[in-house]
Parts: sequence; structure tokens; C-alpha cells
Amino acid sequence: MNQRLQQLSSWLKEKDIPCSFITSTPNVFYLTNFYTEPHERLLGLFVFQQEEPILICPKMEVAQAKNAGWQYDIIGFSDTDNPWELIHRTLSQRNFKASKVALEKEHLTVDRFERMRELFPTAEFVSAEEKLHMLRMIKEDKEVSILREAAKLADYGVEIGVSALAEGKSELDVLATIEFELKKKGIRQMSFDTMVLTGLKTAAPHGKPGLDKISKGDLVLFDLGVVLDGYCSDITRTVAFGKVSEKQKEVYNTVLKAQLAAVNACKPGRRVGDIDRTARTIISEAGYGEYFTHRIGHGLGIDVHEFPSMNENNDMLLQKGMSFTIEPGIYVPEIGGVRIEDDMIITSDGAETLTSFPKELIIK
Amino acid sequence: MNQRLQQLSSWLKEKDIPCSFITSTPNVFYLTNFYTEPHERLLGLFVFQQEEPILICPKMEVAQAKNAGWQYDIIGFSDTDNPWELIHRTLSQRNFKASKVALEKEHLTVDRFERMRELFPTAEFVSAEEKLHMLRMIKEDKEVSILREAAKLADYGVEIGVSALAEGKSELDVLATIEFELKKKGIRQMSFDTMVLTGLKTAAPHGKPGLDKISKGDLVLFDLGVVLDGYCSDITRTVAFGKVSEKQKEVYNTVLKAQLAAVNACKPGRRVGDIDRTARTIISEAGYGEYFTHRIGHGLGIDVHEFPSMNENNDMLLQKGMSFTIEPGIYVPEIGGVRIEDDMIITSDGAETLTSFPKELIIK
Repeated sequence: MNQRLQQLSSWLKEKDIPCSFITSTPNVFYLTNFYTEPHERLLGLFVFQQEEPILICPKMEVAQAKNAGWQYDIIGFSDTDNPWELIHRTLSQRNFKASKVALEKEHLTVDRFERMRELFPTAEFVSAEEKLHMLRMIKEDKEVSILREAAKLADYGVEIGVSALAEGKSELDVLATIEFELKKKGIRQMSFDTMVLTGLKTAAPHGKPGLDKISKGDLVLFDLGVVLDGYCSDITRTVAFGKVSEKQKEVYNTVLKAQLAAVNACKPGRRVGDIDRTARTIISEAGYGEYFTHRIGHGLGIDVHEFPSMNENNDMLLQKGMSFTIEPGIYVPEIGGVRIEDDMIITSDGAETLTSFPKELIIK
Repeated sequence: MNQRLQQLSSWLKEKDIPCSFITSTPNVFYLTNFYTEPHERLLGLFVFQQEEPILICPKMEVAQAKNAGWQYDIIGFSDTDNPWELIHRTLSQRNFKASKVALEKEHLTVDRFERMRELFPTAEFVSAEEKLHMLRMIKEDKEVSILREAAKLADYGVEIGVSALAEGKSELDVLATIEFELKKKGIRQMSFDTMVLTGLKTAAPHGKPGLDKISKGDLVLFDLGVVLDGYCSDITRTVAFGKVSEKQKEVYNTVLKAQLAAVNACKPGRRVGDIDRTARTIISEAGYGEYFTHRIGHGLGIDVHEFPSMNENNDMLLQKGMSFTIEPGIYVPEIGGVRIEDDMIITSDGAETLTSFPKELIIK
């Protein structure tokens, strides 16, 4: 078994849980290297304390799972099979029973949970997520390399976007140009809906790009990322178009100062909450505290939001291999919004900033 | 209450279920006209037999819900609130208890189901989906108008794609051009990952667009759709690039004949399974039966796959207002794949084909 499966098995032993059933695409990918989006079909992975794991997936994807390196049992089912019956049969053959099963409670749906209760009628069901979140939080070198490449493509996306800005173009025009150029580089998927916002929309927490035209004096906010080999990047830059007011400049420089201070505070052993506070203090002292309405950042990996949550109340200590964003923002309804976001990875003695598009104010 | 909420309430009465708790974005949108993607935050809608419904959503989206026309109670919660406590308080104030609750079992996750069991400790939980699927399956005139417009944009996407074909361009180049032009028309979201496949990849059921270059003699398959005002379109066309072999032409013409026959068979009162069989018989008689590996189509609406499932075993009768795709295909590994797909709506005396990009073989 690979190291990740072994770590999950060890946890099961430690917690005296006979097995876990993992069902989300990101966690199955993490544990098996097999990435598939099964839509309404079942995807599942039984991991045991001692026995070899079992993968359950649509029959037409069995070959892909093997190509991805999966060497253990696979229950492949066709559209006319009942996968739960096949699972039942396999577990019976192994004579496997469990008094406790760890599940992804934030992912498994009630209808499937009912099938699990039929399979294990007397079992207690506990959460597998606490362990999976912790495993995925610490990135291996191989994962760091991918995150680094994904971040470079995010930089490129912003570069394209800034170059594309022109009077009279709409937010969607610029967004379309960014995604067009990234697709030409082989990027099939963005890590979330690309955001290009202009003017006062930059201050709207739920602003959506539309046909609004860019005009002189606007702030333009880009927030985007790509999925590369299953891993996400996430960058934000804000630029001024044509000219910039004193107020906009003040907001920008406050965010930049806070962002740089938070980035510089990142190193092993620092409390996560203190990173948030470092930025928040600078923004509050500049008088914009009430306009910094979200946490300083979020963990980044297979999911674009994962552990650690970079919020003020998180007492976790930063460790080598943690990857996350640092993205303070100030959103003033009558001035506009500014956010500056980098992707970070904690190293043995500090931190590496993976995104590198310039942060000094650009007036395009 | 709007008609849709009334229909759900009537069903609750009929089934003697005191309340239902609806949690998926599409169903909440269908019942409230409020479209939101809450990510990890809770979205919920209590619908009762008699009492007025209650919407639960993040506080920062309360205004949007009201703008969308919601006139009843809203429980808005901040990131530091526990929404389940707020729900408990509201239900207690109303002195509401339930022995049975209808849920979206295919959507609700186990962790939230556990909160529901705390709210209703003695209740039986049943599925609300059977009713919601049936309600959504029959489109109102207003919905048909949107589907019609969405289909026109899908036609436009194929038109752009076919125009963009050129020797040496990659699948992703062409895909990027399609989405670029649609975004310029204000389309923010495709209804699924756009597919542009070339050469023998057209025959792979799980082919993904990549940097493969288009070359003379290739079949090129486009499968795409847009989301417009919350509703999806979905079109497939296959064209030949540069030249076409006799075998490719034979496969194409067989699919086209089957597709036209199935389209012509659509009218109120016809059995769904017979529509599939109409196409399948033609393809089988031409000797390609084993290469038509999927159902003839799927329902289409707020979700790109919804009821009715257009498969051979479905005994449901077509009714006015049903919308669905007709998309036979033949996938021969050594020749390539051809699929032709239209969006249909059943009218009072027949059917309207919503997509209209030409179907005779184009050699580009």
C-alpha cells in the first residue's frame, strides 16, 4: 500500500475503527491517484486496518484506475448492476463485519448512507474527515512541484488579463481572453469561476462578471486559478485603469502593506491566527478594519479551499508542507475593492511564495 | 404561495407528511426563484402543508433572496451563527413538530442529516425527490422560452466551433474560441465541460479535449451547452475535416437516420422507451447496434440531466411540456464516433426541436 493508505490504515487501528469508506473524488484521488468525476454513479474506496483496500467504480473506468496505478481489488459495475449488491457479496466473501465505519459525512448523501446502514446494520458511523483533512494538509515534495507550476499559470492568467484591459471592453471580454489563452496552454479546468470585476463591483462580495464596461478611473480585480494535474492555484491582483484616485491608492497601499506583512510572518511554528492578525492589525490601524470582511486565506491543494483555514481563531501552528493563500482585502462600497492574494508553501525555515505577478500598483 | 410551492404543499397533504426540507440549489431555485450556490454554507427551504415556508440562507444573501421575489420568512445566518440553532428556535416558536419529514436524500449529506435527526428526533425521513422530479419535468411556457434561447446559443457555439476548425489547431484551441465568443455574448457558465474531440478520440466515451491537433480525414465532435437564466442547453454535432471516408459517411448517415426518426417519433402519448427503440432499431439493422452504448437522451432543464430519463425501459408517456435531448451515437474504435443531439420540447400535438444547427454531413 502507498504511504497515504498506510497512514489512513494506521489511524483506523489507533481509533479502533475496522474500516472506512471514502467517496469524494478529491479524497479517492489522494489515496489512489485515480481521478474521476462519477456524477450520479457511485465511487467508493474501502480502506481497512490490515486487509487490502477495495475500489468501487463504474466498469468503464476500471482500466483508467489501473492505469493510474491501482493494484488492489476493484468492483466495477455496469449501469444495470446494483453496486451495493456487489459490495455486499465481496464483503461477505471476505467474511468482513464492522462495528464502526468511518465515512465522509460532509460528502456522503442520505440515500447512500441508508445503503451503508444495510451493509453494516449494527455499526456506529463516525467521521473520516478529521484524519483526511490532516493528511492532505501537509504537502509532499511532488505536490509542491505541481502547486508551483499551477501558480505560474495563474500568474500568466493575470498577465493576460492586465494586457487585455482596454476602454470599452467588458468584464466578460477580458475574462474570455484569459481563459482562451490558458486553454491554448492545455488547461482544461479553472479551479473556480474566474472573476474579473470592474469599478464599484470590485467592492461587492458576490459580484459576478458581466457585460459591464471598463472605464477610466476603475479599479479592476482579477481572481483566478487553474487546475493542473489535480491541484489548484488561486491568485488575486487589483489594478487601476487609466488613472487612480488618492483614496484608491490609499486603500491599495494599505492592502499591500498588510499582505506583505502577513506573507513575511509565515514560517514554521507560527500560530495560524497570528498571520490573520498581522494583516488585520495593519488594516484596522489604517481605519479600514470594518471593510476587511473575510479571513486572511485558506488552505490550497486538490481542493481550492481546504485545511488549514487561515482565520484569526485558528490555534494550529504552521508546519513545513502546509500550502495556503494570503489574501487580505478592503471593500469600500463608494471607493471599490482591493484584494491581493498569493499562494504560499511553508518550508523548513520559512515560506515560499508560489505566485509572483508584481504587487506594486499597476496603472494600466 | 406560488404555484410550485402550492403543488409541493398539496403533495405533502396527500402523503400525510407534515413538512419537507429542500436543500439543493436547483430545487430551491425552482421553488423560490432564488438562485445561489452556497458552497459549504447551508441553504434550506422548509415547505409545510399549511403554514408559510421558511428559507434558510447566509445573511449576506438575504437581500438577493428578497430581490428574487421571496416574501416569506428568512433565517439569515452569519459565519459565526449556528444555523441549526436558529432553525430550532424558529420551529419551537411556531411550536412545530413533525413525525415525518421529506428530504432530498440524493443531495443532503450525512452531517446535515444528523442535524435534522436532532431537530426531529422521532421523525421518519422520506424522499422528497419523487415529487420534485415530477414537478420539474413538465415545463411552463416561461421555462420553454428560456430553453429556446439557451438552445440558440448552443447552436451559435457549434457554428463558432465549425468555423474555427483548421489544420494544426488543437481541440483546446477550438474549444477556447467557442467559449470566448459565448462569453462575449454574456454567457458566464457552460452547462457542462465543453467537448471538442477529434480523430479516433471521438469514439472514446471518456475522451477529454487536449492538445491533440486536428488533421485531414478526422471526424470532429462538438458537445456543448450554455446556462441561461438558470436553464441548460445541450447540443452535439459531428463534422468531417478535410475529407471523409466511406465508412465514416456510412456511420454518419446511420446516426442521422436514427436521430431524425427518433425526433419525428416524439409526441404526446408516446412511450419514452419507444423513442429510444426507434433509433436503436435503425442502428442495429445497419449493423452498428453494439456501438450505440448509451440511452437515446435525458431530460433537460435547470439540470443538464434531469427527468425523464430517455431509456429503453422507461414506460412513462410523453406529455406536453417535457423537454429532453435526442442524441443517438455510434462509436467504432477504429473509425471514430458520431453523435447528433438536439433539444426537444413536447407540444400539445407534437414536438418542437429547439436546436437548429444543420444536421446533414458537413465536410469542413
